[in-house]
Order: sequence, then structure tokens, then C-alpha cells
Amino acid sequence: MPLTIHGLAQSTCTQRVLTTLKELNVSDYKLRIVDWGAAEHKSPAFLKMQPFGKIPVLEDSDLPGVYIFESRAIIRYIVRKYSPTSSLLGSTPAAQALVETWISVESANFNPSAEGLAVQLVFGKFRGVEPDQAAVENHLKQLGATLDVYDKHLADKKFLVGEDFTLADIVHYPYLNLAVTSCGHPEVVNDRPNVKAWWERMSSRPAWKQVLAEGSF
Amino acid sequence: MPLTIHGLAQSTCTQRVLTTLKELNVSDYKLRIVDWGAAEHKSPAFLKMQPFGKIPVLEDSDLPGVYIFESRAIIRYIVRKYSPTSSLLGSTPAAQALVETWISVESANFNPSAEGLAVQLVFGKFRGVEPDQAAVENHLKQLGATLDVYDKHLADKKFLVGEDFTLADIVHYPYLNLAVTSCGHPEVVNDRPNVKAWWERMSSRPAWKQVLAEGSF
Repeated sequence: MPLTIHGLAQSTCTQRVLTTLKELNVSDYKLRIVDWGAAEHKSPAFLKMQPFGKIPVLEDSDLPGVYIFESRAIIRYIVRKYSPTSSLLGSTPAAQALVETWISVESANFNPSAEGLAVQLVFGKFRGVEPDQAAVENHLKQLGATLDVYDKHLADKKFLVGEDFTLADIVHYPYLNLAVTSCGHPEVVNDRPNVKAWWERMSSRPAWKQVLAEGSF
Repeated sequence: MPLTIHGLAQSTCTQRVLTTLKELNVSDYKLRIVDWGAAEHKSPAFLKMQPFGKIPVLEDSDLPGVYIFESRAIIRYIVRKYSPTSSLLGSTPAAQALVETWISVESANFNPSAEGLAVQLVFGKFRGVEPDQAAVENHLKQLGATLDVYDKHLADKKFLVGEDFTLADIVHYPYLNLAVTSCGHPEVVNDRPNVKAWWERMSSRPAWKQVLAEGSF
């Protein structure tokens, strides 16, 4: 098992990594479950791997002593190692550039409101915190405005960068899934026909279905 | 001039791109100034290039009809095009992975508080908005906590990924510069000896000095 993923099957960021492994049919990895309840991710041993105390972390026995963290970095590493010419990274220089553009759009435009919504409506429950309705409304408004742009962009495309499914799509899985399921706001997708068609294409892929079957909120 | 950067010399995100071009001694580009005062970035013509209405956007005459946006995507594209084996991307697979890790750390951990501070103390002025002191304090606290981790991490390194200066360092330039200059909070760097030494190494590089000389707040 050259790869060890320190994470949790339910964790949104871990799910990005697991989806990428399954899309590439890489099976020589193990998921080492981090003991979240015992705050293992804030322990001195864990902080030596990931000094910000977040999951997941990737260890590769081919690179002893190296700890790769941040899910969007780990997934690029996995594709470059196991399938460097994969269309997941973009199959032309233009596609490669646009994969990076839309990974960055996900971080900068999509994630703040989509993660914010999940913090309010899903993660808060675990800490016994009631949702702040004003924050929920604000996140829904921001997320809707972002997905309005996606809807226009996707009018003539199967996936964010065109015909090929790429890492730019993969990074959107966990929080788009939570928005339409556990957060109880499927309308953010269903009200936008091209986003809806994109999400149907994405969510029917076997890799993602398997990731959800292994752990979800 | 194969490359056209639609942006502004003073813009933080444009500065990441200009620094990368100058680090690689690429001079066959032009900066086309976006008319911010006239809200050109929200005009239909601009939104066709960048549907979120943000700068910068890169056009490459070698890729007609392709608009590459998001500064962290543009800088990867420029290095891959002009110097694909440059150590700016990491000179080994491990270094490449860690460049991605620290670019992602910049987006996820550093940028929210560093940009938030600049919004309060620098950008707000242009809209006649007074700083919200509670927000300033909160951003300073968050930024300090993040840079505490950087300070430990940098104890045995010249740059974020080790001996080599990389894109992971470049992405930090604009907002670290604003924190210590226009925001009036040099202590966020000076109170942390390894961050201070890193910033001195970074800010003395000719490429960055030239970018600042061409436009800054």
C-alpha cells in the first residue's frame, strides 16, 4: 500500500481524494481513519504532518518523510503519479489552463458560500449550534449568484472545461452534494437547467457513487 | 505580443501574474489596462472573457478564443508555457506536490484574513467606507494565527517549499505586502523571525521590486 490517506470517509475534502483514486482505478491505498472525536487532528503527532490540523493528509511510501496536504493539491499529485496524461488534468495546454481556472473558481467563488451553507445546516448540528438564518440566506444568495454564472457557462458544455470530465468537476462534488441533500436545498441545482444536467452527469458516475456509499453525512 | 493581460498594475491578482512573467524574464506580453472607474470589468464584452467580472484575464494569441482567468491558474500556465522545467513549479515530484499544497494553503488559510484586512484598511477607502474595527481585529487575529504556523514551518527553510523560490511564494506577495505597508501592520511579519527573514528574501527580489515600481496602492 504505497499511499496512506489520513482522513475520514465522510469528510468533504477526503471525498475529493477518494473520488480521484476511484476515477483512476487506483486501489493500492489505505484510508487511515483519523479519530476526530478525540481531536487527533489537533494532536502534536498529527500537527507534524499537517501543521494547520486539517484532514486529509497523503503519505506516499515512495516519498518518505513528505506529507502532502490540501485536497486540491493531493488530487493533482495522484493524477500526475498514476496517470500523468489523463484528461482529468486537461488533454491540451488550453484545457490544462482551464482546469486550473475552474479549480480556482471553485475555491474562490463556489466554496465560501457552499461550505458556509454546510457549516450552518449540517456541521453545526455536531456542535449543537442552531443555524443562523441570516447567514443561511446570505450563503444561498451568494451560491445562487455563482451558479447562475455556471449555468450560462455550462450551456454548451458537458463538463466545466468542455467534453472531458476533469479535476475541476471533481472539486465541486462534496459541497454540491451536501447542498442538494443534507442542507435541504436541491433548488440551487434544480432551478438551473444546465447546472442540473451537469450535476446529473457528475452524480451518476460510479466513482462518486462508491465514495458516497462508503461514507456520507 | 502573444500574451495580453487584461488587468491593472496596482491590482493584487494582476501583480501575481506580472511577478511570474518578470521572474521568468518573459517580456513579450502587454498589460491592457481595464477601465475600473467605468466598471469595464462588469461590461458585457468583459464578462464574455471572465463571467465573474474579475481581473486579470490572460489571452494568448497561440490559443485563439481561450480566456484564462484566476491569477493562480494564469501563473501556472505561464510557467508551463515558457519554462516547463522551472523550479517555480517544483523541481522534483515531491516539490511539485508541496508547491500545490502551499498554493492551496495560501488560498484557504492565508488569503481570507489577509485580503479581508486589505478590504477593511485599503480598498474600503476607495468606496468611502470606514474600517469596521471588529473585523480588522478578527482578521489580524486570524492572520497572526496562520503566520504562527508559517513561522514554525519556515524555521529550517529559505522558502515555503525549501531551498527554491516557487509559485507558492509568489502567490503570497500582494497581500503580505499590503499587510506590512498600506494596512499599517508590519508587526504581522516583524514579530515572527522566520516569516520576517522569508519576507526579506522575497521582497528584495528584482522582479517583485519592479512590479511594485510599476503600480502599487
